[in-house]
Amino acid sequence: MTRQGLFLTFEGIDGSGKSTQARMLAEHLQARGHEVVLTREPGGSPGAEEIRRLVLEGDPDRWSAETEILLFTAARRDHLERTIAPALAAGKVVICDRFADSTRMYQGLSRGDLRALVDQLHALMIGREPDLTLLIDMDPDVGLSRARGRQGREERFEDFGPALQHRMRQGFLSLAEEFADRFRIVDGTRDIDSVAGDVAALVSGALQQAGP
Amino acid sequence: MTRQGLFLTFEGIDGSGKSTQARMLAEHLQARGHEVVLTREPGGSPGAEEIRRLVLEGDPDRWSAETEILLFTAARRDHLERTIAPALAAGKVVICDRFADSTRMYQGLSRGDLRALVDQLHALMIGREPDLTLLIDMDPDVGLSRARGRQGREERFEDFGPALQHRMRQGFLSLAEEFADRFRIVDGTRDIDSVAGDVAALVSGALQQAGP
Repeated sequence: MTRQGLFLTFEGIDGSGKSTQARMLAEHLQARGHEVVLTREPGGSPGAEEIRRLVLEGDPDRWSAETEILLFTAARRDHLERTIAPALAAGKVVICDRFADSTRMYQGLSRGDLRALVDQLHALMIGREPDLTLLIDMDPDVGLSRARGRQGREERFEDFGPALQHRMRQGFLSLAEEFADRFRIVDGTRDIDSVAGDVAALVSGALQQAGP
Repeated sequence: MTRQGLFLTFEGIDGSGKSTQARMLAEHLQARGHEVVLTREPGGSPGAEEIRRLVLEGDPDRWSAETEILLFTAARRDHLERTIAPALAAGKVVICDRFADSTRMYQGLSRGDLRALVDQLHALMIGREPDLTLLIDMDPDVGLSRARGRQGREERFEDFGPALQHRMRQGFLSLAEEFADRFRIVDGTRDIDSVAGDVAALVSGALQQAGP
């Protein structure tokens, strides 16, 4: 059986459970006979992981926002070429934990004037949007306490504080409105299995649209 | 005495003597009381040097041309922000060994369809051209034998062979025509001091135009 490839992304604030949901969805689809590639950003290919380290390690101020956007775009280009596009061409389901929407949200948040630059670079060098983006939405006060319970994460994206997390949530919700055709909002405050059930139902619909 | 900053770049094929000429020009101007910053690409700032290593070390095929252009643009942006722009703002003369014209030439040579992409990225993320570009021009057969006499160079840009070096020379000459307002062609086949004399005269003219 051949299937068209399907490109799914998960977005959401820290602690929203999107990484868990991405993994559960991968297992769910594999159990149903789909070939699945589970990947993440920043990173997702050997070259992109090297660029990721260059951006995220060391002094957070050593790169300007503009240079950082260029480096993330280079990493995304590599990730797309080496991991995502080949898998889609082979008819697989690609599940990516964070993609361009995270860049749009983060950069737009720190400096609103950068959003246009992010979009122009994306159009020029990436040019691919997900078929379906699952926004795992929740109250940041819930998400933040979950994120703090985990270990081994880069320091860049934690400790943003509740006020900033609220702005991030709003940033994602705005993107869901802007790209309403491909965004679906899932309430992430419920128990994990209920969230996973919603996610599976939404993806099942997208798979039927993509056809066998 | 305050002077306006002046942004000078040297371009030319391997072994053309442009790095020697850049250094001699720096000494010449310093002896005349100018504050000079001598820099080079790829690299030229701590962050750009790190990106340079990421691009130039390891398997030459590990990055696609598009990803490589993004990484070089990120390095150039950092170099511009951290080294070039502050020096120009302080009224210094910046002498840069290779700049965007090298990217235009190299990428245009390997895949002509990339030239438009290079230009769009430059317009979006760099937006600055040199005030004066000195193209040290010579027959590649002369330049190649000079380059082979040196040591410790990255493998990427050597051993291109005579045919490719001839195409590179033509690439630079085409850029000199395209950007005739800022390019000056200097015959690099003569003895070093004669070339340096021509360079000094051209730069002296540019400094007078820039005003005291």
